[in-house]
Amino acid sequence: MAKTKKTPRPKAQTPKGFADYFGSDVTERAAMLARIAEVYHRYGFDALESSAVETVEALGKFLPDVDRPNEGVFAWQEEDGDWLALRYDMTAPLARVYAQHRNDLPSPYRRYTMGPVWRNEKPGPGRFRQFYQCDADTVGTASMAADAEICAMLADTLEAVGIARGDYVIRINNRKVLNGVMEVAGLAGEDKGAERGIVLRAIDKLDRLGSDGVRALLGAGRKDESGDFTDGAGLGEAQADVVMGFMDAKRDTGAQTVARLRELVSGSDVGEAGVGELEEIAALLDAAGYGPDRIVIDPSVVRGLGYYTGPVYEAELTFEIKDEKGRPRNFGSVAGGGRYDDLVKRFTGQEVPATGVSIGVDRLLAALRATGRIEAQTHGPVVVTVMDRERMADYQAMVAELRQAGIRAEVYLGNPKNFGNQLKYADKRNSPIAIIEGGDEKERGVVQIKDLILGAKIAETATHEEWKDRPSQFEVPRAEMLAKVREILAG
Amino acid sequence: MAKTKKTPRPKAQTPKGFADYFGSDVTERAAMLARIAEVYHRYGFDALESSAVETVEALGKFLPDVDRPNEGVFAWQEEDGDWLALRYDMTAPLARVYAQHRNDLPSPYRRYTMGPVWRNEKPGPGRFRQFYQCDADTVGTASMAADAEICAMLADTLEAVGIARGDYVIRINNRKVLNGVMEVAGLAGEDKGAERGIVLRAIDKLDRLGSDGVRALLGAGRKDESGDFTDGAGLGEAQADVVMGFMDAKRDTGAQTVARLRELVSGSDVGEAGVGELEEIAALLDAAGYGPDRIVIDPSVVRGLGYYTGPVYEAELTFEIKDEKGRPRNFGSVAGGGRYDDLVKRFTGQEVPATGVSIGVDRLLAALRATGRIEAQTHGPVVVTVMDRERMADYQAMVAELRQAGIRAEVYLGNPKNFGNQLKYADKRNSPIAIIEGGDEKERGVVQIKDLILGAKIAETATHEEWKDRPSQFEVPRAEMLAKVREILAG
Repeated sequence: MAKTKKTPRPKAQTPKGFADYFGSDVTERAAMLARIAEVYHRYGFDALESSAVETVEALGKFLPDVDRPNEGVFAWQEEDGDWLALRYDMTAPLARVYAQHRNDLPSPYRRYTMGPVWRNEKPGPGRFRQFYQCDADTVGTASMAADAEICAMLADTLEAVGIARGDYVIRINNRKVLNGVMEVAGLAGEDKGAERGIVLRAIDKLDRLGSDGVRALLGAGRKDESGDFTDGAGLGEAQADVVMGFMDAKRDTGAQTVARLRELVSGSDVGEAGVGELEEIAALLDAAGYGPDRIVIDPSVVRGLGYYTGPVYEAELTFEIKDEKGRPRNFGSVAGGGRYDDLVKRFTGQEVPATGVSIGVDRLLAALRATGRIEAQTHGPVVVTVMDRERMADYQAMVAELRQAGIRAEVYLGNPKNFGNQLKYADKRNSPIAIIEGGDEKERGVVQIKDLILGAKIAETATHEEWKDRPSQFEVPRAEMLAKVREILAG
Repeated sequence: MAKTKKTPRPKAQTPKGFADYFGSDVTERAAMLARIAEVYHRYGFDALESSAVETVEALGKFLPDVDRPNEGVFAWQEEDGDWLALRYDMTAPLARVYAQHRNDLPSPYRRYTMGPVWRNEKPGPGRFRQFYQCDADTVGTASMAADAEICAMLADTLEAVGIARGDYVIRINNRKVLNGVMEVAGLAGEDKGAERGIVLRAIDKLDRLGSDGVRALLGAGRKDESGDFTDGAGLGEAQADVVMGFMDAKRDTGAQTVARLRELVSGSDVGEAGVGELEEIAALLDAAGYGPDRIVIDPSVVRGLGYYTGPVYEAELTFEIKDEKGRPRNFGSVAGGGRYDDLVKRFTGQEVPATGVSIGVDRLLAALRATGRIEAQTHGPVVVTVMDRERMADYQAMVAELRQAGIRAEVYLGNPKNFGNQLKYADKRNSPIAIIEGGDEKERGVVQIKDLILGAKIAETATHEEWKDRPSQFEVPRAEMLAKVREILAG
């Protein structure tokens, strides 16, 4: 009798930081990703769907001084002692896949991938522990043509999903130019690592702190509103001018921008190499027909400069939306990427150059919704109501007829006793049309067709008089049901 | 100096039981799933993409007497002590989602879902620990119209992905009829649980043991080839006849099959209810135009009879393929499902009836490939070769022109020094065409277009004489490049 204690009922709840997606949230994302995949495919990129689970060793997230993987990943131990984990991005798996299959893959290898990744982080508002990534990378070439191609592809992709030309811009910058700037500013030596770090972090905060704030961090340091003091890089006025000048080097044309950058890095080999790379990319894009209305050299792109080793690129949507407080602001970045040159070194010891872009799937989807590029929630299915439960076969035949004509349609499958519930159901389904065939209609060979969209509109706006003149319910011969439904759906 | 020991290089390997999918393996599956989703959508089913991660509590896989979840799932413990796990199927998450969101969801709720699930099992040949499932379920109705609809939808789906009518059949059976048969065979009582279990397991082995083997298990028991003895259910001859008769009850027409089943369960209420359900489904499908060339009542469908509570259905592909030993055999089952009536009871205490189907994604894809329903590997991209690395902009312009015309194309991004490597690359990419523009061609305003498909064919079959007469390389003016490429691709 010790076993009679009942287990309490489990809670029906998504784990914290995870979400379920319903209906159009799923299908709209899928449609957008399919359009992206089409462009990537046309550019010669091959699909890759790697395992969602990796060894912790391959992910490189194992800290040798603790007995379990660190907090960034969801990990568990296998019976044989190995630790496995869910991928946290698409780049670490690409490195593993490329190292594992490099003899079978074409070289260079262009691949795209789209799917969920998982992050073991504290969930917050709008911050999920599972979300989509959509990446395209070219592995195995140092050619600037690879970077140029990805920028062109990104422009084509944005237009393919519905962002009009003029509503976006791809900006390109280069880490090597920044390195040259650092060198000119006297921050080149081994012993200047700390200062370079401060400079990198400072320019990464340009958006938030403004140029005065960044300048303070380049110099003596900065006290924030709370009174906390952040140490600066200790640059003199002239040195700081060079760094600030870098971010501010954008001119009216690419050629002018390049000329300005060349001035700034004058005397630094790496800096001049970086400017040369920017020039090369600009020439390639120009030849391919991608002018500055789509892709520009813009040294104010600082995001990713710390991580990448050469060209860095970012796609920004330039149209305005309203923020939470109703103020207009630019939509902002929806994709970013750049060149990184040690992709598989951890595995093979070889340096393999690579460049790639990641689209912020949820942000791009939000942009399409914010601007009406995704049509407002389309209508639900036509609902065939059940007036007589003995005649379900008749209703099933109606719904089959509609479906075979390609029309989304359902027969009501709940308890048909209360007809009001059926109309409430149709309402919840956002149905455009309800079809009714009672015994009387059956006898006379007709059906009633309720135009629910028109009905709702009339109920909202019309006077009683108008209402009488504009019926939203029609009686048609059964044989004309399909034609009438088509007519109503065509609007 | 204690820290200089180098960490060994990590192995670049997919974890055991997991796989990576490349190129057309990814896109063909995605295309098939998109076609399936289209049919499901037309039937009024809504997409659902639930979190891949569930609480172990919600999955119901937590064994209270051990300190970690059992072996079937991949699970890990959160810092707050909760256990999370990867979903192992789509039904447990549906139950959780329905219980959690039932006030917002339409009732009945038709939903479909497609995505990976994870099983913590010993991997074996062809047995993966991550694989795709594709489910459609109708929750919240006991109406047989829901079951009939799913069978019709399954037929439409198979045809939509490319299985011709006549090459598949959907078979329907009913657990209640089996229960009636058990009752007639004297196995109805509380004390007969063990015998009923033996009968269920025996009929589940019909395929493998044949009817003699099953009959032995229904009676005294069975000795297998190894000499091991399995206890039987101890049924007498007449009782065993009833059970065997059930599996063998299929007649030429649905009406005859139903009549035969009615004889077998005569006197059992539950059995007669089951026969009534089959009759109802048959009538509904008939009214909707789904005749026995597509959907049949077939009591030999035994898979799932143990799990489901009412109708059980299975889609079988009836065309022949060759097995590993070259012998012809029917392709077999690609989808199955049925009615289960306690979906959310664990969460809410309420019984909520549901019925649903699961398509074996990998099996259906294999079927489409086995029968050539998916076109043989299509060609790779057109490859623009690089004869002069200084003129990359020219090649980029060519490739941009091709892509803008919707043609899949690449410029070679590897080291262009060795031209042979470029042709090897084109071969590895399965390219239909290579384009060549050296300095000489540039000067004369022409390009060389190599038809690689034709070239390969000629190299394979033609004599030297023929080879001379059928050139596979053409020189065309640069301005006619696109037109010539189009002409070759059009075949």
